[in-house]
Amino acid sequence: MNENMNQYLEKASVLIEALPYIQRFNRKIIVIKYGGSAMVDEELKKKVIEDVTLLKLVGFKPIIVHGGGKEISKWVEKVGMEPKFINGLRVTDEDTMEVAEMVLGKVNKSLVQLVEELGVRAIGISGKDGGLLKVEKKYSNGEDIGFVGDVKKVNADILYDLLEKDFLPIICPIGLDDEYNTYNINADDAACAIARAVKAEKLAFLTDIEGVYKNPEDPKTLISELTVKEAKKLISDGYIGGGMLPKLNNCIEAIENGVSRVHILDGRIPHCVLLEIFTNKGIGTAILDGEESKYYHGEQ
Amino acid sequence: MNENMNQYLEKASVLIEALPYIQRFNRKIIVIKYGGSAMVDEELKKKVIEDVTLLKLVGFKPIIVHGGGKEISKWVEKVGMEPKFINGLRVTDEDTMEVAEMVLGKVNKSLVQLVEELGVRAIGISGKDGGLLKVEKKYSNGEDIGFVGDVKKVNADILYDLLEKDFLPIICPIGLDDEYNTYNINADDAACAIARAVKAEKLAFLTDIEGVYKNPEDPKTLISELTVKEAKKLISDGYIGGGMLPKLNNCIEAIENGVSRVHILDGRIPHCVLLEIFTNKGIGTAILDGEESKYYHGEQ
Amino acid sequence: MNENMNQYLEKASVLIEALPYIQRFNRKIIVIKYGGSAMVDEELKKKVIEDVTLLKLVGFKPIIVHGGGKEISKWVEKVGMEPKFINGLRVTDEDTMEVAEMVLGKVNKSLVQLVEELGVRAIGISGKDGGLLKVEKKYSNGEDIGFVGDVKKVNADILYDLLEKDFLPIICPIGLDDEYNTYNINADDAACAIARAVKAEKLAFLTDIEGVYKNPEDPKTLISELTVKEAKKLISDGYIGGGMLPKLNNCIEAIENGVSRVHILDGRIPHCVLLEIFTNKGIGTAILDGEESKYYHGEQ
Amino acid sequence: MNENMNQYLEKASVLIEALPYIQRFNRKIIVIKYGGSAMVDEELKKKVIEDVTLLKLVGFKPIIVHGGGKEISKWVEKVGMEPKFINGLRVTDEDTMEVAEMVLGKVNKSLVQLVEELGVRAIGISGKDGGLLKVEKKYSNGEDIGFVGDVKKVNADILYDLLEKDFLPIICPIGLDDEYNTYNINADDAACAIARAVKAEKLAFLTDIEGVYKNPEDPKTLISELTVKEAKKLISDGYIGGGMLPKLNNCIEAIENGVSRVHILDGRIPHCVLLEIFTNKGIGTAILDGEESKYYHGEQ
Amino acid sequence: MNENMNQYLEKASVLIEALPYIQRFNRKIIVIKYGGSAMVDEELKKKVIEDVTLLKLVGFKPIIVHGGGKEISKWVEKVGMEPKFINGLRVTDEDTMEVAEMVLGKVNKSLVQLVEELGVRAIGISGKDGGLLKVEKKYSNGEDIGFVGDVKKVNADILYDLLEKDFLPIICPIGLDDEYNTYNINADDAACAIARAVKAEKLAFLTDIEGVYKNPEDPKTLISELTVKEAKKLISDGYIGGGMLPKLNNCIEAIENGVSRVHILDGRIPHCVLLEIFTNKGIGTAILDGEESKYYHGEQ
Amino acid sequence: MNENMNQYLEKASVLIEALPYIQRFNRKIIVIKYGGSAMVDEELKKKVIEDVTLLKLVGFKPIIVHGGGKEISKWVEKVGMEPKFINGLRVTDEDTMEVAEMVLGKVNKSLVQLVEELGVRAIGISGKDGGLLKVEKKYSNGEDIGFVGDVKKVNADILYDLLEKDFLPIICPIGLDDEYNTYNINADDAACAIARAVKAEKLAFLTDIEGVYKNPEDPKTLISELTVKEAKKLISDGYIGGGMLPKLNNCIEAIENGVSRVHILDGRIPHCVLLEIFTNKGIGTAILDGEESKYYHGEQ
Repeated sequence: MNENMNQYLEKASVLIEALPYIQRFNRKIIVIKYGGSAMVDEELKKKVIEDVTLLKLVGFKPIIVHGGGKEISKWVEKVGMEPKFINGLRVTDEDTMEVAEMVLGKVNKSLVQLVEELGVRAIGISGKDGGLLKVEKKYSNGEDIGFVGDVKKVNADILYDLLEKDFLPIICPIGLDDEYNTYNINADDAACAIARAVKAEKLAFLTDIEGVYKNPEDPKTLISELTVKEAKKLISDGYIGGGMLPKLNNCIEAIENGVSRVHILDGRIPHCVLLEIFTNKGIGTAILDGEESKYYHGEQ
Repeated sequence: MNENMNQYLEKASVLIEALPYIQRFNRKIIVIKYGGSAMVDEELKKKVIEDVTLLKLVGFKPIIVHGGGKEISKWVEKVGMEPKFINGLRVTDEDTMEVAEMVLGKVNKSLVQLVEELGVRAIGISGKDGGLLKVEKKYSNGEDIGFVGDVKKVNADILYDLLEKDFLPIICPIGLDDEYNTYNINADDAACAIARAVKAEKLAFLTDIEGVYKNPEDPKTLISELTVKEAKKLISDGYIGGGMLPKLNNCIEAIENGVSRVHILDGRIPHCVLLEIFTNKGIGTAILDGEESKYYHGEQ
Repeated sequence: MNENMNQYLEKASVLIEALPYIQRFNRKIIVIKYGGSAMVDEELKKKVIEDVTLLKLVGFKPIIVHGGGKEISKWVEKVGMEPKFINGLRVTDEDTMEVAEMVLGKVNKSLVQLVEELGVRAIGISGKDGGLLKVEKKYSNGEDIGFVGDVKKVNADILYDLLEKDFLPIICPIGLDDEYNTYNINADDAACAIARAVKAEKLAFLTDIEGVYKNPEDPKTLISELTVKEAKKLISDGYIGGGMLPKLNNCIEAIENGVSRVHILDGRIPHCVLLEIFTNKGIGTAILDGEESKYYHGEQ
Repeated sequence: MNENMNQYLEKASVLIEALPYIQRFNRKIIVIKYGGSAMVDEELKKKVIEDVTLLKLVGFKPIIVHGGGKEISKWVEKVGMEPKFINGLRVTDEDTMEVAEMVLGKVNKSLVQLVEELGVRAIGISGKDGGLLKVEKKYSNGEDIGFVGDVKKVNADILYDLLEKDFLPIICPIGLDDEYNTYNINADDAACAIARAVKAEKLAFLTDIEGVYKNPEDPKTLISELTVKEAKKLISDGYIGGGMLPKLNNCIEAIENGVSRVHILDGRIPHCVLLEIFTNKGIGTAILDGEESKYYHGEQ
Repeated sequence: MNENMNQYLEKASVLIEALPYIQRFNRKIIVIKYGGSAMVDEELKKKVIEDVTLLKLVGFKPIIVHGGGKEISKWVEKVGMEPKFINGLRVTDEDTMEVAEMVLGKVNKSLVQLVEELGVRAIGISGKDGGLLKVEKKYSNGEDIGFVGDVKKVNADILYDLLEKDFLPIICPIGLDDEYNTYNINADDAACAIARAVKAEKLAFLTDIEGVYKNPEDPKTLISELTVKEAKKLISDGYIGGGMLPKLNNCIEAIENGVSRVHILDGRIPHCVLLEIFTNKGIGTAILDGEESKYYHGEQ
Repeated sequence: MNENMNQYLEKASVLIEALPYIQRFNRKIIVIKYGGSAMVDEELKKKVIEDVTLLKLVGFKPIIVHGGGKEISKWVEKVGMEPKFINGLRVTDEDTMEVAEMVLGKVNKSLVQLVEELGVRAIGISGKDGGLLKVEKKYSNGEDIGFVGDVKKVNADILYDLLEKDFLPIICPIGLDDEYNTYNINADDAACAIARAVKAEKLAFLTDIEGVYKNPEDPKTLISELTVKEAKKLISDGYIGGGMLPKLNNCIEAIENGVSRVHILDGRIPHCVLLEIFTNKGIGTAILDGEESKYYHGEQ
């Protein structure tokens, strides 16, 4: 057997290693919150889409929820609008909302395009389609920050119908309130609400950090696995701050509402979605149910 | 029986008059090309949506195809882009295409929103979703006018699947070529291609004129019904010009490819869609198959 | 816009007004007890059938239950049979039952014929078909009045199967007891039992009075809405008598067994069924669940 | 093994003998024209119903078509109507038609009742239900004999739908013309038209004679099997006369339109339907396709 | 009516007598444990298969579970293996298991062949296929007797899927443990476990005795019906011994787990399965639920 | 990014490379003739089963057809039977057939067991089950060689039904003739007949040679791709001999009957099935339709 063949055999063994994972998630719904660097860097973007498309093809039922990130700011500026702020928070007035919806729509279709290019049936919708996301106005410490909403109700049937027709749904986080006004929703919140509504097997957040640290200053304190109980303890002990706090709260809420496992992945690693699912040693931080995690024992 | 009751009875008789029409189009697909004034005037817009929603509720299967009209120009200007022209035609370069897609997306979701408000399940997609519209580059007298495409293939299964799941599909005319580049499509062309692909019972164009005239200068020469044969004669005799020529050619092509009946409606009349379908004397001009129309006898 | 057009637009607005009602009852079962003048007067008959056919076409699931009314007496006489009475009640002996079944069958098929004429799929059955209505012998104050039965069991599957196959079921109130003898059933009772068995959204009785009065002598005391609680109070206070008493008891029983709303309609008003369903101000008396009705406040 | 056991074993062997027949007709449609003595004699009636019910239970799909026979004449007289005749044929005027429909309806439900009694789901319909039988007026040698019709169209979907829902359809031969007038149809004609429309595996006529004779005077000339070719020869040679002629023509027409086998059975023999199907040597006369029958060789 | 005809009519009446039984078991699952003489004698074998095939054709859902009986011993000897025994029980070592599986496979396909010959779709599987039977090692009074297992779990979906596709499943009692080792299962135990898992209407054991006796020495003490309560009393009173004890325990367990009726049949009687199901006076002993049986009153 | 991560990324890229292949064969039927060394060597066996199981899990529809190879000879000897030969060919008399069926059954279930172990639903059947393979006796140059048959008819519905229920069918090549005698079938022939009947996308033969050579003595003359036309030329030119001749004829016949591509694979290479399907450069020899192959140009 020559060298070439050896290389082939290695390939075969990688595929065979995937067997138990393919089995475990067969026909299971996996919600991926797509954002951060993985959405800016064209190389990373392509790789995330390849990952999700593969999941679809081997029998999983992935759903992508994405934000618009820096693109929105760019276009708000481009059309010459004056940003307004309250308490340091950007206010989403009607004009801003209009631009945000346009940009999110554009991003949405560009993701559809990438998936279609790989030969998989994608459909890009917002929370308006089929009344998928019903929202209520959100206030920031009592202040009106405009058309920013919290998800009040997810019409899961829409997603079940699209999955049954073999679509890969790609969702942008816009919704309607009871008076049918348009609202922007935080993409993390939307992904979490959707994962809960469809009782997803897995919810994965693509972020720009390696995972949850006990001490963000010290990379060696990265936590690979956390139970809800441990996560709450970390929070109450004041270890978690910044953008991680709402994200971790989302994770906890998801687990407590029927999602089996939530992952905070480092979107800067190519194929991070695939690596998390198809290799033994996951990457990033996993949040799960139960009393005590296998990998986290306080001293980490 | 008092006066009030008389009024009620008149209402009842209007509903009863609708019976045979409801029956005739039960479970039939009706494609509506939505554009022109009916898309600008908020009152007219609301009425068109009410009409289409009613069609859906009484058992028809309407599909809306819309353009972006003046909104695209407005936003191209807003972001400070310089329009380019060749042979007097606007060139759709990559930047223009980007803005056009954003605007069409926004219009698309605003229509979804209006239908949802009336309690009907809408889904807004572009020709990218599910690979609905495959296009090839179009040239204007041999000149490159950028990302403007002709529909090469319609993936009708996507529409059948969405109709089966009881969605009202709202489509914006954007498609992908074989290299997965984004193209703009003339909305009339897209509506015509879609109607042909799904063998629609009816295709209705909402326009800003009353219909086809023998002599556009003389309103009394409005033609209420035309066979394909008669339409071709009118064209070869030089009676048809301007924007009506491509529209009428679209109509002919649709009929010749299995659509039962095409209508050129005056979108400036409120509820024109309903009036056309639910009253004896249609409005606008109908194009149909056959040798000779009942209403058109040369001298009209 | 000329006068003609105005008329058309009014028509359109009537259709549009129907939108929310069509939505509310979409795919809901509505049982109509058909009898009285509306069954004798050919004009009224035609209008009732038009109404029900329209309900079917716009997506409701109507079921008609009818009696034979004066036709039975006419034919009993025609064949030269001697009517027998006990306590002033007609006795349904075997011969009378035979004639009654023949007449009800004839009426049944004449209704099927009218519905078919309007292009809708009707099927006329009795409680014998598929064992739809199982009865037990009924006594009048302990006296044997022959083959008159109370419904003991409704085989609702028969109706679900016929509705699934898109039939409009038209039912005549005849059933079998455990020994498979033929029994006549009061049409009101049959309609009530069927509405309960299929958990109908609405049960409407077509009668020859305007509705329930507090004082039948005074037309101004017509009650437009009654809760079950209020209805029971009216009965115990002695306001309800004559043929209205069993009818109102039927209404109460229906509501208490899962029917959402029961109506006593004046069948002498043309299109009363349509008017009740498609206009804001219902006609006749509605009986519904709950503590206190909106329209009935004691002094009415 | 005692005597009793021997008896049981004989029973078992009868059931086992039925095996190949049950297999052959599994899920096949069998149309039975029910009439003659088998409809008058209560004992025979019960046995026919038992036979057909058994066919249903072992997996066949029987359909009964029945006439009203002598019952119609009895009731026409009973209500004191004057019979009218043209060319010696009874004229079916509107009044006669009304009585005929009532009587057929009564007979129809009495058959439903017998089948239900044996625990099988029956549904009794006429050609009006679901527009099953469309007719056109029939003339007798150019003379108007009233509401007597020929079947013009059978809406077979109605029967497929009812069979799919596991009903045993029992049909009385009444139909509607294009103006929705009620017509009486000869039951043999109706059965033949229905068998052709559903491409029945078998069509069996229950009659009051033993079968087709070459010489009706000589019982030894009973023919057990006839090909269409042989039947036509018998007719052209003048051997067939009286009521047998239209019946045999019906048989020929059925075979030529896709029915596999037609039987003329002696309805006076108890369980004749079962005997024909479950025993080697059929009873009565079978008409089938092909050149030459096995049993008929001219000299019979 | 001649003699021949009388004979035919008797046949018809036997078929008609079967009507209520066919009805009662329509679409019900019946598990038949096939073994003993009925598997050795070619005549008896043919008759059992005819019986089961008939059950299938008339709409029941039979499942056959069979053992290998004396064939296994014959082949173990044939290949020259030395039988090993512990406590007088044969030990199923790996080699014996291999031969047993081969023999059971052969018997399995021979039964498939017989059923197919009668024109019915059979499928022969073991407890390995689709993971039908999961077992755990069984010990005999603490002694290791090799690869002999108890059924731990039945994957009933496999059987539902095969029945839905109209197969007659024929099962040989082999299963896998959690480490995927092959185990032999007692056929009675396997039949009982399967009947419980699919909530069979009936479970019938074909044995080489007439049924349960109060006193095995006295044939007059054969018990035709036993409640579970009565069976337990018989056991605790010491009346039941030998091979009947585990069999009767199996019966009790089956009834207590949802099987409606269990039968111990004398497989030496031809067509015993048919006789049990299609005649009033069953043969053998029936075990059923409830307090007191109709036929067993202590003194039997 | 550390070394470990690099390794992971390589794994990810292998999976991603599989994307287009997974897509191409999604829901396509692939028939694998399993035999030779790959069935003897336990390591190779495990790898073949892993390969096929993976194909199943990623959405292909594999069907395994296997022989018994050397096991049959071993057991024939074990039971002390004297082999008979005609023209140097082993004669399959009744006793040999019995042993062969037992051995093939054993092999069949051992494969089922291996697939089940990997968590996939397998079902092991022979050509007897559901009448899958109908055979006719085969003669060797006019000599009777016993129960050896040619496939006359494949009942493909059996396989479609099992695939629909998500089974992986594993088939041993035994069939029945019209008199329901048992016959042995050459496994290559059976695989070929099955692939043709189900219009397989691919048929792969696992053999003990590298592929087709122009000159078997010279390994450099291995042909990687052959059109049917080229294969026929090679045969007529006398390049193909020995066991390869019937195999190549099978390949040609398969292609000419609707199978898209046939492969002769070297079963001695671990994971040869996976390598063939998931890598660009196939292994072994591919036979396909068309005029001229890409890789074979005479001089190879």
